[in-house]
Amino acid sequence: MTVTSSPLGIIGLGTMGRNLALNLADHGVPLVAWERDGALAARARAELPAATDWAQDAGDLARRLSAPRAVLLMVTAGAAVDAVIEALRPHLSAGDVIIDGGNTDAADTARRQAAVATDGIRLIGLGVSGGEEGARHGPALMAGGDPDAWARIAPTLRAIAACAADGTPCCDRLGGGAAGHFVKTVHNGIEYAVMQALAESYDLMRHGRGMDVDAIGAVYAAWNRGPGGGYLVEIAADVVRTRDGDGGPLLDKVVDRAGQKGTGRWASLAALDLGVAAPSIAEAVFARAVSAARDERQALSGPALGSIDIAVADLEAAIRAATLLAFLQGFALISAADARDGWSVDPVAVARVWRAGCILRAPLLDRLADAFGALPAGAHPLCAPALRVELAETLPGLRRVAATAITAGYAVPALTSALSWHDGMIRRRVPADFLQGLRDRFGAHTFERIDAPGSHHADWSGS
Amino acid sequence: MTVTSSPLGIIGLGTMGRNLALNLADHGVPLVAWERDGALAARARAELPAATDWAQDAGDLARRLSAPRAVLLMVTAGAAVDAVIEALRPHLSAGDVIIDGGNTDAADTARRQAAVATDGIRLIGLGVSGGEEGARHGPALMAGGDPDAWARIAPTLRAIAACAADGTPCCDRLGGGAAGHFVKTVHNGIEYAVMQALAESYDLMRHGRGMDVDAIGAVYAAWNRGPGGGYLVEIAADVVRTRDGDGGPLLDKVVDRAGQKGTGRWASLAALDLGVAAPSIAEAVFARAVSAARDERQALSGPALGSIDIAVADLEAAIRAATLLAFLQGFALISAADARDGWSVDPVAVARVWRAGCILRAPLLDRLADAFGALPAGAHPLCAPALRVELAETLPGLRRVAATAITAGYAVPALTSALSWHDGMIRRRVPADFLQGLRDRFGAHTFERIDAPGSHHADWSGS
Repeated sequence: MTVTSSPLGIIGLGTMGRNLALNLADHGVPLVAWERDGALAARARAELPAATDWAQDAGDLARRLSAPRAVLLMVTAGAAVDAVIEALRPHLSAGDVIIDGGNTDAADTARRQAAVATDGIRLIGLGVSGGEEGARHGPALMAGGDPDAWARIAPTLRAIAACAADGTPCCDRLGGGAAGHFVKTVHNGIEYAVMQALAESYDLMRHGRGMDVDAIGAVYAAWNRGPGGGYLVEIAADVVRTRDGDGGPLLDKVVDRAGQKGTGRWASLAALDLGVAAPSIAEAVFARAVSAARDERQALSGPALGSIDIAVADLEAAIRAATLLAFLQGFALISAADARDGWSVDPVAVARVWRAGCILRAPLLDRLADAFGALPAGAHPLCAPALRVELAETLPGLRRVAATAITAGYAVPALTSALSWHDGMIRRRVPADFLQGLRDRFGAHTFERIDAPGSHHADWSGS
Repeated sequence: MTVTSSPLGIIGLGTMGRNLALNLADHGVPLVAWERDGALAARARAELPAATDWAQDAGDLARRLSAPRAVLLMVTAGAAVDAVIEALRPHLSAGDVIIDGGNTDAADTARRQAAVATDGIRLIGLGVSGGEEGARHGPALMAGGDPDAWARIAPTLRAIAACAADGTPCCDRLGGGAAGHFVKTVHNGIEYAVMQALAESYDLMRHGRGMDVDAIGAVYAAWNRGPGGGYLVEIAADVVRTRDGDGGPLLDKVVDRAGQKGTGRWASLAALDLGVAAPSIAEAVFARAVSAARDERQALSGPALGSIDIAVADLEAAIRAATLLAFLQGFALISAADARDGWSVDPVAVARVWRAGCILRAPLLDRLADAFGALPAGAHPLCAPALRVELAETLPGLRRVAATAITAGYAVPALTSALSWHDGMIRRRVPADFLQGLRDRFGAHTFERIDAPGSHHADWSGS
């Protein structure tokens, strides 16, 4: 689809910026571009249409656009974003829109929105998901900020976004303020959790059941055709089956130390700050930390683990349950941030925007959107009846897999943390009375009573 | 023991400050005191010896002391500490020592140490553990900062500290910089983890085994006489047996919503920042968050859980293993922070300082001190042979309890997270190769190979 658009400024033509620019150009969006790095600029110039208007610097770029301007920043999150905004500001006027398409921390976005608002400039925080390929051919775009500013740039961004199966572009304003960047952070946190759960299933199949990688690949391919399918399961099927030059599984040549770019950590930090439980995300971050402690692990080198008897159908159920529970933790996190910051996020819109273009894309997102749509306002995501049914189907398998794995010595933090979160959240009464009793005993922290208002302190001497 | 000491300034006579001041006075330390709040000052005046010299404000307090001065701050952590230091600074001289005895974040301590160092003033960050009672009769004191400044104030602080069974005061400089406050933060994080594990054991005994509170109290009392004993187990025995006015267990009248003052969260944040796995601590924080979501839990209200068949001896082993693993995570966290900040922390000294006066005090600390003493420098705490023996004795029980609990629907995040951390850390190869394969597939993040240097990227299309 070609859009009629006044020229869009774009600053930053690294991998993500260049691919988004090519995607925009494909859709007929005239571009005014600037990239500070000569080599990156040269590469982008060679690939972008000749009609692209190349600016000398940020101020020049702003002058080449006429008000009301729209400038998309695709620069590295952090100080570079502040620097570019400061360079732009003197050349912008009230009503102009800056779009930050970087992996920016939501707190930074909120701060910058407030700063530029004093000049009447609107900053849209835009989470861009789907990596290089998504940027080029259709990302998921998660926006937050002023609705009028959004209305002006939305047609252009919708045109370049991925589309869900029903044709809806995966591009939406998810709320005010930093909602877009926060939702992107949570997206990445859930991604960590789902990947860790899948890694545990791989470990259990490969070493617990002694399956070869072709058989495991076939299992993932089969799962991908069922209700637990999705992009990560789809590529898992390919990844495990990939061979090295010598014909052996390529994964066996890969160092077992997982890197991270920090977004899973951000989601965990947000959970701690908000006082919301997101153990599936945090455990996935910690599992990467354990993997990174490779020298220590090799020094400790415990006994080889034995084979275990788990049904592949139970494993599928376990991954489905752990995935769903990781999503629900993520939605609870978004809901808590929204309650604090007042973004008015609709979880249905979030689920819909994740249906295509992003790493989390999966048929589950349609079911989540439907379930949230039927949920009374303010109700916890775990309350949705359709999700309770899905959990009733899959939790028994998760319990069997987790119990068997921990008995045999396999580490399954993603599986057990999802389970304990669920089992805590549906428990009418948890043993926090015991914690409160201890706290009041050693620190006079006081406690609430179920039968009387106010704070109480007791003599807990056991008589 | 009475110490010969020049007068010590003390600012802040709330609960902790007043009790420390009374403790200091008992040991013959002359005090110059200031408390901003009139009611608190009046209460402290009534309780402290008549010889106490009362200052009008921070500057007046400094002027009443002669150089080199020592001033202990017992004010609320945060902005109040900055305010008091700024008020003091103009009246201090090079060589003076400020001791911050608050629950201060280590990063704040490092910042303040650098700031006052420009005037030649030394700030000792002092973690004070043991609550009100400890402050009055013998706290554990964890110091960090300049060794000469420490040498000057150490005799006074050692005199008021708790003593271990061998007579050693639980008061030590644990390293440079903010080491003391960081160790205190980790202490509190471990405390969260151990309390949560104990809460899970209470839940499993009360609801899983259907034991009454007297029987449970007797179990904790018995554990307290064994290798898994310690202050928290000791008070658990009292707390569970405590009766309400109507004769029923008081815990049953306590609202199951655990509060927190943030130090468990701080330890979790530190773990995330350092890239070190501390899941037992984070899961304990999240378990409190789940408890706080009481309205949601009551709305969700899952089925009543059935009785389960677990041996009390297995539960004891489970708690011993989960406790030891929480400690080892904490020590790994201290070691990582030390590696980053260069404090030169001796884990033996940390274990010894926790032997008395603090919430974590337990015979286990002697075993940890011995084990760390025998450990080669830089080795991971899990490597200590004596601890491996202790884990070999207790892990089978932990596995049985955790597997039985999760099968029956009991949430046991402290037990399972300790287990999965252990099982990951002793695994020669974890499935992070799978994570790296996925990451390289969807985001071209590259990976390392076990058989060739450098970064690699592959076509993971499954062929």
